[in-house]
Amino acid sequence: MKGFAMKRIGETGWIEKEKPKCGPLDALVSPIAISPCSSDIHTVWKSALGDRHDMILGHEAVGVVAEVGELVKDFKVGDKVVVPAITPDWNSIEAQGGYSMHSGGMLSGWKFSNFKDGVFAEYFHVNDADGNMAHLPDGVSPEAAVMLCDMIPTGFHGAELAEVEYGDTVCVIGIGPVGLMSVAGACLKGASRVIAVGSRPDCIRVAKEYGATDIVNYRNGSILEQVMHLTDNKGVDRVIVAGGDNDTFIDAIRMLKPGGKIGNVNYLGEGDYVKIPRLDWGNGMGHKSISGGLMPGGRRRVEKLASLIKYGKLDPTKLLTHHFEGFENVEKALLLMKDKPKDIIKPVVLI
Amino acid sequence: MKGFAMKRIGETGWIEKEKPKCGPLDALVSPIAISPCSSDIHTVWKSALGDRHDMILGHEAVGVVAEVGELVKDFKVGDKVVVPAITPDWNSIEAQGGYSMHSGGMLSGWKFSNFKDGVFAEYFHVNDADGNMAHLPDGVSPEAAVMLCDMIPTGFHGAELAEVEYGDTVCVIGIGPVGLMSVAGACLKGASRVIAVGSRPDCIRVAKEYGATDIVNYRNGSILEQVMHLTDNKGVDRVIVAGGDNDTFIDAIRMLKPGGKIGNVNYLGEGDYVKIPRLDWGNGMGHKSISGGLMPGGRRRVEKLASLIKYGKLDPTKLLTHHFEGFENVEKALLLMKDKPKDIIKPVVLI
Amino acid sequence: MKGFAMKRIGETGWIEKEKPKCGPLDALVSPIAISPCSSDIHTVWKSALGDRHDMILGHEAVGVVAEVGELVKDFKVGDKVVVPAITPDWNSIEAQGGYSMHSGGMLSGWKFSNFKDGVFAEYFHVNDADGNMAHLPDGVSPEAAVMLCDMIPTGFHGAELAEVEYGDTVCVIGIGPVGLMSVAGACLKGASRVIAVGSRPDCIRVAKEYGATDIVNYRNGSILEQVMHLTDNKGVDRVIVAGGDNDTFIDAIRMLKPGGKIGNVNYLGEGDYVKIPRLDWGNGMGHKSISGGLMPGGRRRVEKLASLIKYGKLDPTKLLTHHFEGFENVEKALLLMKDKPKDIIKPVVLI
Amino acid sequence: MKGFAMKRIGETGWIEKEKPKCGPLDALVSPIAISPCSSDIHTVWKSALGDRHDMILGHEAVGVVAEVGELVKDFKVGDKVVVPAITPDWNSIEAQGGYSMHSGGMLSGWKFSNFKDGVFAEYFHVNDADGNMAHLPDGVSPEAAVMLCDMIPTGFHGAELAEVEYGDTVCVIGIGPVGLMSVAGACLKGASRVIAVGSRPDCIRVAKEYGATDIVNYRNGSILEQVMHLTDNKGVDRVIVAGGDNDTFIDAIRMLKPGGKIGNVNYLGEGDYVKIPRLDWGNGMGHKSISGGLMPGGRRRVEKLASLIKYGKLDPTKLLTHHFEGFENVEKALLLMKDKPKDIIKPVVLI
Repeated sequence: MKGFAMKRIGETGWIEKEKPKCGPLDALVSPIAISPCSSDIHTVWKSALGDRHDMILGHEAVGVVAEVGELVKDFKVGDKVVVPAITPDWNSIEAQGGYSMHSGGMLSGWKFSNFKDGVFAEYFHVNDADGNMAHLPDGVSPEAAVMLCDMIPTGFHGAELAEVEYGDTVCVIGIGPVGLMSVAGACLKGASRVIAVGSRPDCIRVAKEYGATDIVNYRNGSILEQVMHLTDNKGVDRVIVAGGDNDTFIDAIRMLKPGGKIGNVNYLGEGDYVKIPRLDWGNGMGHKSISGGLMPGGRRRVEKLASLIKYGKLDPTKLLTHHFEGFENVEKALLLMKDKPKDIIKPVVLI
Repeated sequence: MKGFAMKRIGETGWIEKEKPKCGPLDALVSPIAISPCSSDIHTVWKSALGDRHDMILGHEAVGVVAEVGELVKDFKVGDKVVVPAITPDWNSIEAQGGYSMHSGGMLSGWKFSNFKDGVFAEYFHVNDADGNMAHLPDGVSPEAAVMLCDMIPTGFHGAELAEVEYGDTVCVIGIGPVGLMSVAGACLKGASRVIAVGSRPDCIRVAKEYGATDIVNYRNGSILEQVMHLTDNKGVDRVIVAGGDNDTFIDAIRMLKPGGKIGNVNYLGEGDYVKIPRLDWGNGMGHKSISGGLMPGGRRRVEKLASLIKYGKLDPTKLLTHHFEGFENVEKALLLMKDKPKDIIKPVVLI
Repeated sequence: MKGFAMKRIGETGWIEKEKPKCGPLDALVSPIAISPCSSDIHTVWKSALGDRHDMILGHEAVGVVAEVGELVKDFKVGDKVVVPAITPDWNSIEAQGGYSMHSGGMLSGWKFSNFKDGVFAEYFHVNDADGNMAHLPDGVSPEAAVMLCDMIPTGFHGAELAEVEYGDTVCVIGIGPVGLMSVAGACLKGASRVIAVGSRPDCIRVAKEYGATDIVNYRNGSILEQVMHLTDNKGVDRVIVAGGDNDTFIDAIRMLKPGGKIGNVNYLGEGDYVKIPRLDWGNGMGHKSISGGLMPGGRRRVEKLASLIKYGKLDPTKLLTHHFEGFENVEKALLLMKDKPKDIIKPVVLI
Repeated sequence: MKGFAMKRIGETGWIEKEKPKCGPLDALVSPIAISPCSSDIHTVWKSALGDRHDMILGHEAVGVVAEVGELVKDFKVGDKVVVPAITPDWNSIEAQGGYSMHSGGMLSGWKFSNFKDGVFAEYFHVNDADGNMAHLPDGVSPEAAVMLCDMIPTGFHGAELAEVEYGDTVCVIGIGPVGLMSVAGACLKGASRVIAVGSRPDCIRVAKEYGATDIVNYRNGSILEQVMHLTDNKGVDRVIVAGGDNDTFIDAIRMLKPGGKIGNVNYLGEGDYVKIPRLDWGNGMGHKSISGGLMPGGRRRVEKLASLIKYGKLDPTKLLTHHFEGFENVEKALLLMKDKPKDIIKPVVLI
């Protein structure tokens, strides 16, 4: 079968591979909608995961079931399914403890295009099909649904980690597609004021549509100073970090009220240390908590979030700025994420 | 001063009383917007609290500060303030433990028109002014703000007690003004499907505007059967009880999935026992939890919820079906709540 | 193979059955220590589950692995293992949501001696061996470990459901083996005063050893009055229900402070309704929450609780009042649970 | 009146001051048992709080009420009381939100010997007496009770922040008096294995008495390596930081399993940044959460923790290695904390 792969660090291309084997609990799926992710870019061009050879890329796909193992109960060939980026081993100790994304080791619930072939292929393999796929619900389009694989669950997880509550003032740092979903997710947990930090006009426009009430453009000066000014020096209740780098946490801690919480969903790819400013952290005594975590995957999570689309509470298609048709356009779509033209938020490829 | 009072069980009327005394931590407030509540009706005509003599009614008011005690720091004469229905003693053991509404004893955070004079008066007394009043925010009208005294915090507390999460299917039983705020509150905690149980057309219309996706009319048959039918016999994740009576919990438990939660914010005024159906409760083993509680009061709560109005996340004025001007119309407004014409949700009186 | 079975309602006996089949994820285990449970008694003589024919009884066993499926990774023939009473399907929607004991439907994580053959057999079948068995830790005896199958996790779950915190006054109603583990579990969550309700001298003695500070004997009058007297009418912070019947909740609600919590781990076998006294429940407004649930099972849970024994924090052998050797004595041990001689807490059979 | 004070940075001595004024909600208390704290040392000799002039030191005292304001309800002259180190303003926004220790601003619940005179005086002032003092319970000695002011609530807060659960493996870094209470507090939340990091023989002995199962001596090599070795490279579930410095968090993150939690109760007095090692923090994705906070104060907290002593669940007197009698010995006791002889854990002065 054909797949679009990372050939080695810095190089991508089409390759031929054996169709994957389908174990008794597993499924093979053929994609009908896929979306490249900036992690694919980091993987190939920033060697975020180290070297990989002829590894098929991609971890966001909606598809059609092509084969199922004999122990699979709830899916059959021909079913349309959403497959989240994170596909845990559900009987692992970690999953039993509520951290399925770390089943088998930290981050090891993330398999596609990390340590197994991804979804940019004629067929891709899903471990534990009953636990890791969800039926595409009636009334949810494949292009909306493909946002359920990573963008929505990751962005929303930021609001979960930050434990947003009714009436909170929330600062969302970074309004790429994940950050935009953090804006939406914060509003769907009851945030009142949402200060979104970003600069690109299209992202700003969409952030406002998802509920951002204030925009802070880092090109206009210090994020911290702007946020403190907007809040009459009171600071914010919650910070969702969906962009930036290690140093972003310095401002995040500083703008936070005591008792505040930071939820990080930004993949930190470089540098040795995230720095927590001691004094602003209350000398370790300020009850400013810091959490960060990979998105929860699994069937239940997708079904829950899909129902938000189905019942009209969330429209993820505002993220989709670039539409392609045909498997062969995966490459073009991926390179868009690399080149980041001004107006891109997220591309989708329908097959 | 003049006040509109419960003279005895079954009788209301205007009375003259001494202006209340203002202690060192307290404030006196003159109302500018008030709203009668169905609890006032239960108090007078259903003797929900037992007998009371010449007790001024009302616990929902926005007003102007007329006097402050010498230890009050954050308010001065002339300030416009929102005063929640529940005004706890914040240094009590209960408040320190997170249950301020029960400061000094179960339900004792509820003082106005319960065991002290209420707000339908030229002046009313607020204990611990710094802790129990909030400044009326710019951009929030007094009639919107008066819904912050009871309807919003009570309705939203139902969604808090039920611990609504992203993508939950929630059944809200009862769509009077509190239930409507539970619908809005459930959506602002991430509910996807909200099944609202009610019958009056105006309430149904407003429920849909606040995010209800399905309506169950108990006049069309069993609530339970309708909910189970709508959900393909899967039942719901959460139930918010904002109406009905002791027996409502039977259906609520039955429609709930294992692991589900019930949040009750309906004042149960009659009968000896709330009944939990043993078998459907999983013989005590089904992880269907039942919580019910009086709304949290206090300044922080009002400020948080007010910010939802200020930043456009919630418009409570959809509840306000009947508008009056002039203090003398309090009586008319109260009787509306008693007579319950078909089209009433909530009246407001501007003074 | 031989097994000791429920032949029909009211009758038990030895039967011959085919050795169970071992699927690719499963294991067969031969018991080396087993313990009968009062649920076995309810199943046979009180038809708590309805009729069953030739169903092998028992759900508490430590054993030796006799066979493993080809997909099992962490266990091999000859390993000594602890198998909890509850053996969920870990990839189910319910387990993904944190309620593994209800995987596949309410209570359906409970399989042994419920809808599949139990552990009183030469061989018993464990679904998802990697997820549902734990290695017997060094330094933990089989007779101590067999208490990890049901008594410890169930008793401790009562303290979890009641959310016991530092310094809480906790009333534990019922001090059979589960209630005794609730006493220990409450202390291991920081309870200060533990009022244990029971009457049998041996249970009382052991309750005190596990940390009970006060004993209330229901033979001496109303439980409620005694608890209120002991607490100067303040009541208790938490109630763990590990005995009694539907009506036990009436007292439980009454003795609870506002903001208090009830955790039920008693299987309620009869009657239509659990009754919540309306007034003492604060008219639905008292923040007295009621939760009840089947114990969590699975490997992680067993490993965690086993470590309490291993590191000397819990000694479950105080429960073991009657010791037998030889598989044939299962019957005698079971009948002890039926006849309940005064001095029994829990029997164990070593094989 | 006389008081033992910080005269300026680096200098202490006896001073004469006016007896404090007692406002309507306040009390004056004369100490009967006091204990100096290493924070007093940091304040004077490490200028942890900046300069102070003639500020009376001390924040751990049990005393006798000498005067009460006219609005105080639950205390009268002559009552023996425990006064916690943290005395919040309970009606503040922060206290209403559950963070009373930050009432009025980050850390501002800490008043004694911070921005108001402390307890090493003939009389000291307690704001909001009803909210901030607790009656000394029968059966609890003043020397045991004085550990309720700071050591117990701070140490136990570490276990709360780390959210210790049944069967957790917990590493407690630092076994001075606070760390020792973290060991005890972890065990009282259900920790099974407690790895205590320290070197002084007396502290090690007491740590074991409080439940530590393993000791790691940093003089024997890397803490991290020793912990990983002890846990077969699995790491720990929770870390409580009760000693060390900014860099301690590097090891803490590294030894933590994904899904693990750090609770810090160590006052970090120097350096710009606490460093979180990016890779071991799962690139921000590892669900290793970091919380740190000042102890909760207030009457309820003291009463709850005092009941642990009263009911025999905790014996804090094991901390008390040095006993003095007479107010004049405060100086000697304080200097002991400065000079740190090998065998000191905590001194107490009875007056």
